Amino acid sequence: MTRPILHSYFRSSTSYRLRVALNLKGVDTDYVAHHLRHGEQRGADYLSVNPQGLVPALELEDGTVLWQSLAIMEYLDETIPEPPLLPDTAKARARVRALSQMIACEIHPVNNLRILNALRSRFGTDDDGVADWFRHWVAETFQPLELMLAQSPDTGTYCHGEKPGLADICLAGQVVNNARFSVDMTPYPTICRIFDACMTTTAFIQALPANQPDAE
Amino acid sequence: MTRPILHSYFRSSTSYRLRVALNLKGVDTDYVAHHLRHGEQRGADYLSVNPQGLVPALELEDGTVLWQSLAIMEYLDETIPEPPLLPDTAKARARVRALSQMIACEIHPVNNLRILNALRSRFGTDDDGVADWFRHWVAETFQPLELMLAQSPDTGTYCHGEKPGLADICLAGQVVNNARFSVDMTPYPTICRIFDACMTTTAFIQALPANQPDAE
Repeated sequence: MTRPILHSYFRSSTSYRLRVALNLKGVDTDYVAHHLRHGEQRGADYLSVNPQGLVPALELEDGTVLWQSLAIMEYLDETIPEPPLLPDTAKARARVRALSQMIACEIHPVNNLRILNALRSRFGTDDDGVADWFRHWVAETFQPLELMLAQSPDTGTYCHGEKPGLADICLAGQVVNNARFSVDMTPYPTICRIFDACMTTTAFIQALPANQPDAE
Repeated sequence: MTRPILHSYFRSSTSYRLRVALNLKGVDTDYVAHHLRHGEQRGADYLSVNPQGLVPALELEDGTVLWQSLAIMEYLDETIPEPPLLPDTAKARARVRALSQMIACEIHPVNNLRILNALRSRFGTDDDGVADWFRHWVAETFQPLELMLAQSPDTGTYCHGEKPGLADICLAGQVVNNARFSVDMTPYPTICRIFDACMTTTAFIQALPANQPDAE
């Protein structure tokens, strides 16, 4: 293997995060698509790579498999220091990780495809019910996130200062995802401003779902 | 303020994580309880501390508020190096973070109190439906977690080697939580073995829900 393999799905917001981080760090990968709606990530071939059967995963040149998007991004940041995804003091890193985890631990897990499918199959929820669920959990976290970003002197053009980092990556992935469920973004001017800044950056643009080989 | 304030709820598994980490690092705190079932974490006083209205949070001596349990534990590990919660190579850290996030990003978020309450209020789910939901998402992640732990030469007495760390903390909190929903643990002998090892350690025992001032 001459370069890492990125296991991805174009529409997955966790895959989006990793694609942005790889772009920022300048890492070339071979892109392997797993179609989540067809259950391809649960096939035996992929389970032998990642027994959790989730994307993304990153197979390194030596065969080591990394999984869980936040863990992989921390690995990239430790092994390829420039440009940094985390700031340089412990308190600032705690802030950026916490902002990231508000999205990665509070919004995405309860709104991803397998949960939305479970709402349909277990409770007979229709499209409106699924969309309302999605928007509810976005609002539950975006309201305090907007407040925290708007009030903090640490917030700059991006979530922390003038360069995009871990929190911006998570934020951008969520905002992209929100568009699929017509989330009203007007209550979140700071989040929108930061998202717009991300969308001027090649690393964030090239990582967009529409720009992936498996885009539909 | 002479020592940090720990905002906690005895039964919260994310509060449990932070209590273990503080114990391991030897940090004394003032314990402030927020009764989640009474909605105390959504009061104006606490929202001024943590606008997200979730526990745990850690108020440092200088007034800085840290939130999100994984971010706080990384902060503790950076500022109080001994005993380390993460191993000493980037790949090993990626493994421990990923094991931690399997629990923190895949199980806990979809099974916490506010989600279970939403299943009841939105879909009329009864106790059996809630318990089945809880057990389903535990199994979805514990099956691959068991496999990964059982198959890896990096697994020792604990998730990674012979000392407890970040992944053990997350694992122990989840196993404690599982007991409330009578999760069958027999398919998970490695997870059970690691949990039993944690439960021989004072830091893990003193952090248990039953040993908190707000225990019921």
